[in-house]
Amino acid sequence: MSQKVRVGVYGASGYAGQDLIEILKDHPCVELVFATSNTYAGDFVPDTDLRYIKSEEARLDIVDAVFLALPHKASAPVAKLAVEANLKVIDLSADLRLDTADSYKTWYGIDHPHPEMLPVPYGIPELNRDKINGVQVVAVPGCYPTATLLGLYPLLRVEGLSLESPIFIDAKSGISGAGRTPTEKTHFVETYGNIVPYSAERGHRHVGEIEQEVNKFMNITEPIVFTPHLVPIDRGLMASIYVTLGYAFTSDKIHSLYANVYADEPLVTLMPLGTQAQFKGVVKTNRCHISITPVNDRYVHITSVIDNLRKGASSQAVQCFNLMYGFPETEALL
Amino acid sequence: MSQKVRVGVYGASGYAGQDLIEILKDHPCVELVFATSNTYAGDFVPDTDLRYIKSEEARLDIVDAVFLALPHKASAPVAKLAVEANLKVIDLSADLRLDTADSYKTWYGIDHPHPEMLPVPYGIPELNRDKINGVQVVAVPGCYPTATLLGLYPLLRVEGLSLESPIFIDAKSGISGAGRTPTEKTHFVETYGNIVPYSAERGHRHVGEIEQEVNKFMNITEPIVFTPHLVPIDRGLMASIYVTLGYAFTSDKIHSLYANVYADEPLVTLMPLGTQAQFKGVVKTNRCHISITPVNDRYVHITSVIDNLRKGASSQAVQCFNLMYGFPETEALL
Amino acid sequence: MSQKVRVGVYGASGYAGQDLIEILKDHPCVELVFATSNTYAGDFVPDTDLRYIKSEEARLDIVDAVFLALPHKASAPVAKLAVEANLKVIDLSADLRLDTADSYKTWYGIDHPHPEMLPVPYGIPELNRDKINGVQVVAVPGCYPTATLLGLYPLLRVEGLSLESPIFIDAKSGISGAGRTPTEKTHFVETYGNIVPYSAERGHRHVGEIEQEVNKFMNITEPIVFTPHLVPIDRGLMASIYVTLGYAFTSDKIHSLYANVYADEPLVTLMPLGTQAQFKGVVKTNRCHISITPVNDRYVHITSVIDNLRKGASSQAVQCFNLMYGFPETEALL
Amino acid sequence: MSQKVRVGVYGASGYAGQDLIEILKDHPCVELVFATSNTYAGDFVPDTDLRYIKSEEARLDIVDAVFLALPHKASAPVAKLAVEANLKVIDLSADLRLDTADSYKTWYGIDHPHPEMLPVPYGIPELNRDKINGVQVVAVPGCYPTATLLGLYPLLRVEGLSLESPIFIDAKSGISGAGRTPTEKTHFVETYGNIVPYSAERGHRHVGEIEQEVNKFMNITEPIVFTPHLVPIDRGLMASIYVTLGYAFTSDKIHSLYANVYADEPLVTLMPLGTQAQFKGVVKTNRCHISITPVNDRYVHITSVIDNLRKGASSQAVQCFNLMYGFPETEALL
Repeated sequence: MSQKVRVGVYGASGYAGQDLIEILKDHPCVELVFATSNTYAGDFVPDTDLRYIKSEEARLDIVDAVFLALPHKASAPVAKLAVEANLKVIDLSADLRLDTADSYKTWYGIDHPHPEMLPVPYGIPELNRDKINGVQVVAVPGCYPTATLLGLYPLLRVEGLSLESPIFIDAKSGISGAGRTPTEKTHFVETYGNIVPYSAERGHRHVGEIEQEVNKFMNITEPIVFTPHLVPIDRGLMASIYVTLGYAFTSDKIHSLYANVYADEPLVTLMPLGTQAQFKGVVKTNRCHISITPVNDRYVHITSVIDNLRKGASSQAVQCFNLMYGFPETEALL
Repeated sequence: MSQKVRVGVYGASGYAGQDLIEILKDHPCVELVFATSNTYAGDFVPDTDLRYIKSEEARLDIVDAVFLALPHKASAPVAKLAVEANLKVIDLSADLRLDTADSYKTWYGIDHPHPEMLPVPYGIPELNRDKINGVQVVAVPGCYPTATLLGLYPLLRVEGLSLESPIFIDAKSGISGAGRTPTEKTHFVETYGNIVPYSAERGHRHVGEIEQEVNKFMNITEPIVFTPHLVPIDRGLMASIYVTLGYAFTSDKIHSLYANVYADEPLVTLMPLGTQAQFKGVVKTNRCHISITPVNDRYVHITSVIDNLRKGASSQAVQCFNLMYGFPETEALL
Repeated sequence: MSQKVRVGVYGASGYAGQDLIEILKDHPCVELVFATSNTYAGDFVPDTDLRYIKSEEARLDIVDAVFLALPHKASAPVAKLAVEANLKVIDLSADLRLDTADSYKTWYGIDHPHPEMLPVPYGIPELNRDKINGVQVVAVPGCYPTATLLGLYPLLRVEGLSLESPIFIDAKSGISGAGRTPTEKTHFVETYGNIVPYSAERGHRHVGEIEQEVNKFMNITEPIVFTPHLVPIDRGLMASIYVTLGYAFTSDKIHSLYANVYADEPLVTLMPLGTQAQFKGVVKTNRCHISITPVNDRYVHITSVIDNLRKGASSQAVQCFNLMYGFPETEALL
Repeated sequence: MSQKVRVGVYGASGYAGQDLIEILKDHPCVELVFATSNTYAGDFVPDTDLRYIKSEEARLDIVDAVFLALPHKASAPVAKLAVEANLKVIDLSADLRLDTADSYKTWYGIDHPHPEMLPVPYGIPELNRDKINGVQVVAVPGCYPTATLLGLYPLLRVEGLSLESPIFIDAKSGISGAGRTPTEKTHFVETYGNIVPYSAERGHRHVGEIEQEVNKFMNITEPIVFTPHLVPIDRGLMASIYVTLGYAFTSDKIHSLYANVYADEPLVTLMPLGTQAQFKGVVKTNRCHISITPVNDRYVHITSVIDNLRKGASSQAVQCFNLMYGFPETEALL
């Protein structure tokens, strides 16, 4: 690598941002130029010589690419400027994930700040590698959609699901998924010893992403039924997926289907039949572990686990970045 | 109460047994006569003047009733002797829960030790109160079936579920559900920060109980799809239930259905619409909390939580005991 | 009890306030009249029919006594008004714990709001029972001083400590001790898997209380060396105390000394020699457990544990209240 | 590196053994030849192509060096054989840590299996680097002594402690320190929400090591007062050390003393004055973090934290190994 990519990170002090820095600082093709944090501006960025700067102080003319770990709505305007400055943009926010401004309005309740930027490739390389290679802008998906879609993908690709049955997803997320800002929801005493369902009734905004991507493979007429839960663990995310197969498929074939599809994926591991994916295997790694349990001929239980801050955010962003620049896809990730 | 019921507890040092002692020692109608523990024989029973004795030293001629917190297969022989001695029997093991010896063989893989004792009333008072009143023997259900059946009961009673759709149950249990004997599964380091699905593929023995009781209300042709998970919390149990309604029902009516059915139940609380049941509300209590979320017209998400050692074992046993003797049902429980 | 004491609770939604309500609502001699919370005004007070009101809406003319679970500085003015209205006052804040305004200024850095109220009895009944009986105002001590002073008291009473050696206290507190307001310090992700010393260098304000009370028994010339730690548990507090005995004492006599002093104390339990006090025995109880370990002739290690929200705050307040009114000291506490 | 060192690991499935494998498998100068585990013989060694073999199947003639993560008493005989086979030996057990057979008998209650092997260098490179360089056998210290001695070393080196005052050490260890074998002590339910002091009264065997090494620097006449506690966290270890300075020293100089001594140590970090060392900074790293708090002129509080399985066992073993072979000291560790 004669020349490193000069990189800036927005929103670098949040939990996803911290992991992003941790990965990028050891990336052999990256020179970390700035890291923004409006809350911690002036403090040292852990394990680097940089100090956080305010977003407004970041200069787009001294970097080649920016990672945006910003809240939705705040991210699109920065992405817009970066694109205009001919930078590559890896957006970890929700702003560019939905393909249309209408869909954005439906799920986020506000007008899209820059509808002219839509759509951009949805950044799960295992599903969309060809669309991400060399591109300028990628929307990195949320943690729930990543675990869910990786868990469903082989079945979606062969159109193996019943079109008249809902996909039931019972998801469990570590508390870091709720963000670094202290709230009642993240208070130790409120979460200790507790498990809390939230945003049931298709209320979680990630449902929109999941449906959008599922529908690119199969026109399932029934809704995604998705209930996330906060569990008293710092990081990790499990999507427990219950599906009904189409009549052309039987559950005993599903494990080998998955084995084939994921045979060459360096960051996805299929557990041997009879073994269950669990948090332990993936936390603080960049991998997804998937286990398949045929319940009877028609029903299959799929467990898909990731680290919500890694494969669910930061490391997937770097994986996309590597593809966008033609670097080895797992550079700095294995 | 001129005369107290003289009670013996078998298996009193296990986690359910400990909670049972804790409740019974303060029960105004109970005189605690003995508590067995083969492992801890000789040690003091916490907060009592008794010492644990070995099972073989327990005398059935000095008590009026026995609680059996024993492993399956070990329990039925003691139950048999107790019945012959004209004692009342509250069996917390699995031995008397299934109505037939065939079913027992199917789920437990062994011949039933005393098939002539079957069937006995299944001890969930909210479902079976009339059958438990004054009876001599009751089989107290497992923790998973209790949470699940209380979560389903109002819909079962009105035959409100689709007959052609499976009931999906994603359950989460605290580690005490795995018992007091130290194993790799209960080692702190193995469970810390981890969530582990187990006995998927309809492998958990409680599935048999759940199907048996569901089928008493509705002949659903599809299987119960049930996956339990161990979560890193000491006690508490959540059944996350995903159901499809029959065509005669719409989901907007379900909350008021539940409100009516449970209006006068002292130990079951229905959460207000929009509020989710969680571990915090029930741990170390004798209650079940239930929340209802209509997903769309046909799909309903039900969360039912209990303390696995209380309403899932010990306190439900005492609730049954109270009914068997005609005491106020919640004596020593509220 | 022909006539109940009408009670108001200020600061009732904080963690200590919540436990206070939990105890008072079942106290047979108490009628709970109001509970204030500026943050949650309008919400129901859990397990009661009351709703929180703002402090300013509380009427002192309809109660006989007030419990003040308020921050320091905010508490004294309310205490002042309550005293003028002839109410009994149980103050859980720091405002009335130090005997002089000078000491208050030293430790809290501000002028005392009402120096004319000082001193009032320091509310650890096991040390000061006679001074609390029937009195109008009591200052309930902090959680660290309660555990520490109960751990030292028998040795202090016989002046058994070396006058030239410091008392070393390494304390461990559950996160609820940091209060209900969400902060970085109480964020689940920051505390999970972590142990954090804080306010070392005699920086914790509770050191002032501890020294004041120790000095009433012995004039130790060396400082109290006190380091608190936050541990990732919701509630519980351990004071690990390392002391040097005076030359007239040897460590083998200390256990029987403690056994004598605490023989008739209903809320203090001395562990048998060789057994260590731990969180499990006291959390969610109103008790203090103490264990004594002679290290060699001169050095003794004392472990004293309480529930920081109970014997360290709310239940000790009720214990004082009982003495102030001549009720049985453990009414509603055992 | 033309030629790799061929390495065998005994006791490779224990928690320290697992971390050892994790480090060695990525060590550029190491070829991992075998890993023994009597319990898991036949299973795959995680993230390697090896399977565990039984100890008795291990061949000493195909390796150059062995790491012994075995229980005391079992380790010395293997060490003996390995030395006779001219291998280098890195012993993580207690068998070679004490310099004399008498001392071993005092602390372990049994005759030393191979007294002729004693003494060997005590493997804390920051204290003993010169004695470890190029040597054939090293005894890697326990986790408690490592944290404690690194916390004391700069003061010991200048003989800065009072000779007539005890060193008080209040230590907190994650549960992995209690080993992988399931016991009541490591059961999740027993440890959850609990903090447990144990082996007080100088009962912990690590006290012998600490005193031996302290006495090499200073002849303190008073005992080490050491109380370990188990805390509900998987890994991490904190030694909270309370010392009295000799009269020639004042506490305000101590921070700069430590800063000087540790200035060039790659694996020891001194926290800035006013900042406290905590578990978060060291868990899953190979580092020790130390903070210094002057309490008054004479008393200093030192907090020293490590990962008990890394710098407290496996990574320190590799650090010694690197010195024994003349590799860069932090190879595979940074």
